Amino acid sequence: MTHCTRHEEYISPFSARYSSPEMSSLFSARAKAILFRKLWVSLAKAQKKLGLPISDPQINEMQAAVNDIDFEKINEYEKKLRHDVMAHIHAFGDACPMARSIIHLGATSSYVTDNADLIQLKEGLSLLFQKLLHVVKKLSDLAEKHAHDPCLSYTHFQPAQPTTIGKRICLWLQDFLLDAHEWHRLIEDLPFLGAKGATGTQASFFALFEKDHEKVKKLESNIATEFGFTRILPISGQTYTRKLDIHVLNALESFAASAHKFAVDIRLLSHEGEFLEPFGEDQVGSSAMPYKRNPIYCERICGLARFAISLSQNPSYTAATQWLERSLDDSSNRRFSIPESFLTIDAILNLMLHVLTSPQIQPERSLSHLTQNLPQLCMENILMESVKRGADRQKIHELLRKITAHSFESLISSIEKEKAFSLSRKDIEKIADPKQLIGRAVEQVHSFLKEDVHPFLQKHPPTKVAIAPIEL
Amino acid sequence: MTHCTRHEEYISPFSARYSSPEMSSLFSARAKAILFRKLWVSLAKAQKKLGLPISDPQINEMQAAVNDIDFEKINEYEKKLRHDVMAHIHAFGDACPMARSIIHLGATSSYVTDNADLIQLKEGLSLLFQKLLHVVKKLSDLAEKHAHDPCLSYTHFQPAQPTTIGKRICLWLQDFLLDAHEWHRLIEDLPFLGAKGATGTQASFFALFEKDHEKVKKLESNIATEFGFTRILPISGQTYTRKLDIHVLNALESFAASAHKFAVDIRLLSHEGEFLEPFGEDQVGSSAMPYKRNPIYCERICGLARFAISLSQNPSYTAATQWLERSLDDSSNRRFSIPESFLTIDAILNLMLHVLTSPQIQPERSLSHLTQNLPQLCMENILMESVKRGADRQKIHELLRKITAHSFESLISSIEKEKAFSLSRKDIEKIADPKQLIGRAVEQVHSFLKEDVHPFLQKHPPTKVAIAPIEL
Amino acid sequence: MTHCTRHEEYISPFSARYSSPEMSSLFSARAKAILFRKLWVSLAKAQKKLGLPISDPQINEMQAAVNDIDFEKINEYEKKLRHDVMAHIHAFGDACPMARSIIHLGATSSYVTDNADLIQLKEGLSLLFQKLLHVVKKLSDLAEKHAHDPCLSYTHFQPAQPTTIGKRICLWLQDFLLDAHEWHRLIEDLPFLGAKGATGTQASFFALFEKDHEKVKKLESNIATEFGFTRILPISGQTYTRKLDIHVLNALESFAASAHKFAVDIRLLSHEGEFLEPFGEDQVGSSAMPYKRNPIYCERICGLARFAISLSQNPSYTAATQWLERSLDDSSNRRFSIPESFLTIDAILNLMLHVLTSPQIQPERSLSHLTQNLPQLCMENILMESVKRGADRQKIHELLRKITAHSFESLISSIEKEKAFSLSRKDIEKIADPKQLIGRAVEQVHSFLKEDVHPFLQKHPPTKVAIAPIEL
Amino acid sequence: MTHCTRHEEYISPFSARYSSPEMSSLFSARAKAILFRKLWVSLAKAQKKLGLPISDPQINEMQAAVNDIDFEKINEYEKKLRHDVMAHIHAFGDACPMARSIIHLGATSSYVTDNADLIQLKEGLSLLFQKLLHVVKKLSDLAEKHAHDPCLSYTHFQPAQPTTIGKRICLWLQDFLLDAHEWHRLIEDLPFLGAKGATGTQASFFALFEKDHEKVKKLESNIATEFGFTRILPISGQTYTRKLDIHVLNALESFAASAHKFAVDIRLLSHEGEFLEPFGEDQVGSSAMPYKRNPIYCERICGLARFAISLSQNPSYTAATQWLERSLDDSSNRRFSIPESFLTIDAILNLMLHVLTSPQIQPERSLSHLTQNLPQLCMENILMESVKRGADRQKIHELLRKITAHSFESLISSIEKEKAFSLSRKDIEKIADPKQLIGRAVEQVHSFLKEDVHPFLQKHPPTKVAIAPIEL
Repeated sequence: MTHCTRHEEYISPFSARYSSPEMSSLFSARAKAILFRKLWVSLAKAQKKLGLPISDPQINEMQAAVNDIDFEKINEYEKKLRHDVMAHIHAFGDACPMARSIIHLGATSSYVTDNADLIQLKEGLSLLFQKLLHVVKKLSDLAEKHAHDPCLSYTHFQPAQPTTIGKRICLWLQDFLLDAHEWHRLIEDLPFLGAKGATGTQASFFALFEKDHEKVKKLESNIATEFGFTRILPISGQTYTRKLDIHVLNALESFAASAHKFAVDIRLLSHEGEFLEPFGEDQVGSSAMPYKRNPIYCERICGLARFAISLSQNPSYTAATQWLERSLDDSSNRRFSIPESFLTIDAILNLMLHVLTSPQIQPERSLSHLTQNLPQLCMENILMESVKRGADRQKIHELLRKITAHSFESLISSIEKEKAFSLSRKDIEKIADPKQLIGRAVEQVHSFLKEDVHPFLQKHPPTKVAIAPIEL
Repeated sequence: MTHCTRHEEYISPFSARYSSPEMSSLFSARAKAILFRKLWVSLAKAQKKLGLPISDPQINEMQAAVNDIDFEKINEYEKKLRHDVMAHIHAFGDACPMARSIIHLGATSSYVTDNADLIQLKEGLSLLFQKLLHVVKKLSDLAEKHAHDPCLSYTHFQPAQPTTIGKRICLWLQDFLLDAHEWHRLIEDLPFLGAKGATGTQASFFALFEKDHEKVKKLESNIATEFGFTRILPISGQTYTRKLDIHVLNALESFAASAHKFAVDIRLLSHEGEFLEPFGEDQVGSSAMPYKRNPIYCERICGLARFAISLSQNPSYTAATQWLERSLDDSSNRRFSIPESFLTIDAILNLMLHVLTSPQIQPERSLSHLTQNLPQLCMENILMESVKRGADRQKIHELLRKITAHSFESLISSIEKEKAFSLSRKDIEKIADPKQLIGRAVEQVHSFLKEDVHPFLQKHPPTKVAIAPIEL
Repeated sequence: MTHCTRHEEYISPFSARYSSPEMSSLFSARAKAILFRKLWVSLAKAQKKLGLPISDPQINEMQAAVNDIDFEKINEYEKKLRHDVMAHIHAFGDACPMARSIIHLGATSSYVTDNADLIQLKEGLSLLFQKLLHVVKKLSDLAEKHAHDPCLSYTHFQPAQPTTIGKRICLWLQDFLLDAHEWHRLIEDLPFLGAKGATGTQASFFALFEKDHEKVKKLESNIATEFGFTRILPISGQTYTRKLDIHVLNALESFAASAHKFAVDIRLLSHEGEFLEPFGEDQVGSSAMPYKRNPIYCERICGLARFAISLSQNPSYTAATQWLERSLDDSSNRRFSIPESFLTIDAILNLMLHVLTSPQIQPERSLSHLTQNLPQLCMENILMESVKRGADRQKIHELLRKITAHSFESLISSIEKEKAFSLSRKDIEKIADPKQLIGRAVEQVHSFLKEDVHPFLQKHPPTKVAIAPIEL
Repeated sequence: MTHCTRHEEYISPFSARYSSPEMSSLFSARAKAILFRKLWVSLAKAQKKLGLPISDPQINEMQAAVNDIDFEKINEYEKKLRHDVMAHIHAFGDACPMARSIIHLGATSSYVTDNADLIQLKEGLSLLFQKLLHVVKKLSDLAEKHAHDPCLSYTHFQPAQPTTIGKRICLWLQDFLLDAHEWHRLIEDLPFLGAKGATGTQASFFALFEKDHEKVKKLESNIATEFGFTRILPISGQTYTRKLDIHVLNALESFAASAHKFAVDIRLLSHEGEFLEPFGEDQVGSSAMPYKRNPIYCERICGLARFAISLSQNPSYTAATQWLERSLDDSSNRRFSIPESFLTIDAILNLMLHVLTSPQIQPERSLSHLTQNLPQLCMENILMESVKRGADRQKIHELLRKITAHSFESLISSIEKEKAFSLSRKDIEKIADPKQLIGRAVEQVHSFLKEDVHPFLQKHPPTKVAIAPIEL
């Protein structure tokens, strides 16, 4: 994509760096203008079908002009009228002289703005959902591949028990699967505003249809169906309840938290040398320290994820402060918080797909860390075995806490000496076999993939998505 | 409820003022201690059932001691061991000398802390859901009662078209119904952590059951079932994924936004004199201005709602910064953000139930405001009618904008004069009949109640809840 | 300003609608590139002065190329090297073949990025401060003009005592004056990063100057002085402490709260008809309700102000999560949160200047509201007078609370009847004289303007700023 | 301190765990009640002095009852009157029958509530400032002690150049010094509300003093002086501008970010084994993994710090939504957000003082990490030296990036081979001397301590503060 290349004014990093063409285009001026026109065509078609005096030539004329947006004219009207939807109406009217008098018939601005917003929310979520499916697929494959590779688990970023690389990947995968379920539910559930009029009473449509309730209802359902919505809000003021924005941005926020945790983990594992980002041949690590292999994409994910979390508080305060049938203190806020949330999450997903496309996972390095910590790692098993042989749990716990073993050998001799353990050297060696220490990690991976992940991917097979190359 | 009456130290307003006994007790030290013991009993019972050498007397001994918490002893142990769960284990062990060695067998602290948290989340949501049902019921009744009462709608807090009081109440009702659906879904979906061990591999339980995968799975499902959970997290580190906290607190946040909008609307309508809070006989409005009738409960709701929204950002940042198999930077944050979210929402619901129990709705006052604005209010209908008679929409729109009518009479004469309208005095009088201006408001109310609200209330009939009297 | 006119991709509303040319240009790619080059020139000059073998021709060559940015070349380098500062270095080197080997000598990327950021923060604050001075001036003039005009004050949005319009304006003015003081302090106090090297030890510069501490210190102070900074951070990692960003964005957040309160008040007063926004001749109030006079600029201020508040949480979490000598999870976040905070506040100030340039203040309307509430308004004075004459405060308070006076006449008779008041009709009439009820409002206005506002404006006279015309 | 020991209801962790007695008592019911009475005594004294008919016996009676709070009676009144300040007035009146009629004379509730709040803010900040001075002192001593101890610096949590332990400590120290400056400024600048009456016009006091402006001004300044305030707000509505709360909570938020960064760094260094928390003899690391040495206090600091950051958004939204002369949607929010911010920061400071009292710093471990990374670490110096000898910077940078040295020996041979470097083995050995690689780290530490830290501590010597023992 060629980006906006003006260097003399502020350009959002989404324009210049982070956005994918598909998401950027969804929130473009053109996409919005076309949606407005499609909504007007749909309104006219439904009105005609329900008996209003609208002719086929009028509808054909409108239909023909849907994609032909004259922004210069729109801007002129906007300057004059200081009202953006009116500017679009006039420009559309100019392009459709026959239909001019029936464009927007009975409608208020929110008919186009709010229904268009809901369509964008739905399409935006669908785009993100597609990319998330690829993330789920890639993590699923990696989990399977590394299901048996043992590694050290960390609690408090201190060595804890052994686990496997695949199991750790499933920690991330489960989080993203929760997000995928949530997003899918939202895509299905999001309602359409419909045709509610200036304050939600549908008074203008009711009058147009000469007080025929059924016709007003059919008007709404015809239009909603055309845009793929199965639900219509039964109640509204001038606009749809801003709670819907809360639902959507909170779902994006929750994903941002998953992505931040994923990225922080990889940054910590990069320090360990166990999980590195892909690194290009010509790439410069640092101008002053050329040898660095920095996890810069995961760091970038973190910064973006925190931004998305901060954005998500906006719809709550906006919904909270809407007065009565509507106040306009939502608009300037939603113009930023909604598109930027989608663009940020899109940027994070692009980065994740990049990182997950050829990550440098180092199982042998993980194994070596595990081996170094072997004396410590078998302690719980020693505890368990002793208890099984009749020892008191608390007593053994306290004894173990006082042993500081610098090597496996010294551990064995300490334990052999203390009768309370009732364990021989041979017992201990058996206990400390790495394969004995990972518990059900392998089985958990397989059963999680089989029972949760694969069925979900079968139901929602990832389609081909163009992955935007990562810019700096 | 007798509150904590210490005056020499900081006491949370939840202790002293805002909480209901039922919610306060859910987050008490006793409730948590008892939950821990119930979880240990359940673990032992399941372990016994699956073949571990645990005796009936041991289990009976534990069962008998579940409710008998010796906090003094627990505090002593905690001071010595500096570990709260270990303190509980020792105190329980003291109360159950026979069972001491099998208490917490194979478990790690998170077995009790995290499963107890999930149980609290579920019970807390259920308590709130019950109160919300009453809110829905009361609003539903009020909407029905005032379905036909006309009032002025406001956009930009400027007079807009007529609507009805019942229709406006449905704006609030729909928001709360959305919350009710969301909460109900969460109550049903919330999973149990189960028995996952120190780092999530179930290594200790796997060893106890001599590598029998099925027995470990059954162990978990037996316990989960006992506590009313149908789902168990397939994957975990030491703790359950903190995303679950995000889901719950975001659902509470979304309700807080609904409540804030509801309360702001009533504060604006109190200014209009159209919707007043109940006001006690002896109540003092203000020390200096005794005549005031201030909407103080709705103002309080607003302050609390913003607090709940601010709390809801905590789980996102906590989940985002959890390192690998767990880090303990969650604990001190969750101790505040989770209970305080529930207690805040509980306080808001108590206030709402108080406000909605005998609100002073003034339909005659609403009607009088509407009448004052009659000349302005019929303008869209005049627009519609003119368009219907063949006039150009944009042209009429511009003409109307330039008319400033100080009375209905002056409006009529202005319009009669301008041919473009093609409307007579009689036409205009008919158009301005208040019953003609509310569109489908009445029908919307009835159809929303019938199709959405009543079926939900039938499925979830509000049970008797003790409504805490509102303290200052 | 001609805006970025691409309609096929997402364009930030700052590009298309809300920003002023001066603020937009401060955060443009060109401004940043030029700042980088100026910093390199300054570095070279200081290094030469302190004895490094750098020639005048080299410096002249650099100086000549400062403003001549070849973005195409920079983009090519960036694609190849995947490192933005290195790309700028190479492009500058191409433009200055003689100086190539000494550009960026001893420096790390943060030398240019972080010092440029600090310069932008300082310049951005200065721009905003200039506009804020105009706001202060306009409010100061309005307060003076309306110092004596009585109006009703509102607590709980219920009629309270009389005050004056000028006094209410001072509520806003004082808030903005607090912001002006804070911004001015920040502009003065903001430190320069200086030349700290890759991890803050200045190792590279120390080596270049052959371990001469004094020369390294002079290097920093020479450069800082050139950019107008009097303070240099004594300590840093690779970057300046992100706490500085917290200070700046918190100061912007605090202004956003002032602006939101100001705008909400005007929205409420628009409802009362007491304070209206300027309204253009051709402006369309609403597509469906052409008669509306909506406070749309103040509504827009509210939405933007909440956005600025939400942005301000970013630097806190960023500073909180910076690891050791630096982590790069700040960059992607700061790219949005910092410029957007400045651009949002700039947009708010532009809107405020527009609203305050010809506001429609309606003193006669305020007076009429006051008169309607006269019976209630004099109650505190009756209380005071009775107490002065020996009555018990609590008793009178309770008596007054029970009086409901629908007119001034009925109030007088109620009070005359009750002996506890010891007040005659004449006493009451005197008490209720409007001039008697506004207390020290007028005097407060004059003394505040004289003692606080005017001296500040004398010290910081508002210079001519181009006020961007408000776009839709 | 004996804590509130009720186990049947929710008790804030501040009551049970985290608060220090001094901070907890500042926000107690008793402290607030006493402040109210002191403010009433001060008001009466000033009124008497300025000529109102108030007698010495009345004042003496009030003075004698200041500390004798009958909470039972206050609660009874509150239940009856539903107004907390009125309840306090009545109870004080009961204790002072002579003074009853002149208590609260001319005042409104905010006279006591808001001035008391400002006194609490000031005292709370002073308490925190004292503890922060100790933190500064301890870090200053540690920085001095370890000024020369070399260690590895990390950027991106990847090995970067050498620095010293003392220098790293100064990164934290500088952040806390910035906070200390900010807090001190706030303590000095915080204004008093004074005596402003019900809506800020001072109408009641103006009437009491028979329209003598000077007397009303003196009334305010007399009281303010008594409570140690040098500034009085010139303008107010009923309450003081909530921007003051923003200033205070933002200053606490900024400290929370410093503390979080400090604690995260120590958690990372604990992983490295370079900086460990003090650890008690009997302390249990983990119930299942007794060998763990977890940085639990630093983890706790992180959780609390994020909570404090989340709290700090409250005053902004509260100030933003205050309507006209005051609305009461601030109160319920401030009851939580203000005390909890202070208590959280107090808890963090207590934890920091605990961690810094006997931290286990391991310089030999740091040195060993540094030595392992020697080949990488000297690369920038090789770059610098080569450039100094005439090589092209960019070329050498690219050559170095391609060298991967597994040992110091292999590095030397790689560089010797490549003529472009013009460096001999001897040159390289000299370059790689650890003392040569830390740049100005030592000097920076000494100069920062001497020029910034010590002078500040001399001006503000840390007084003895009781450090609360850390509870679990």
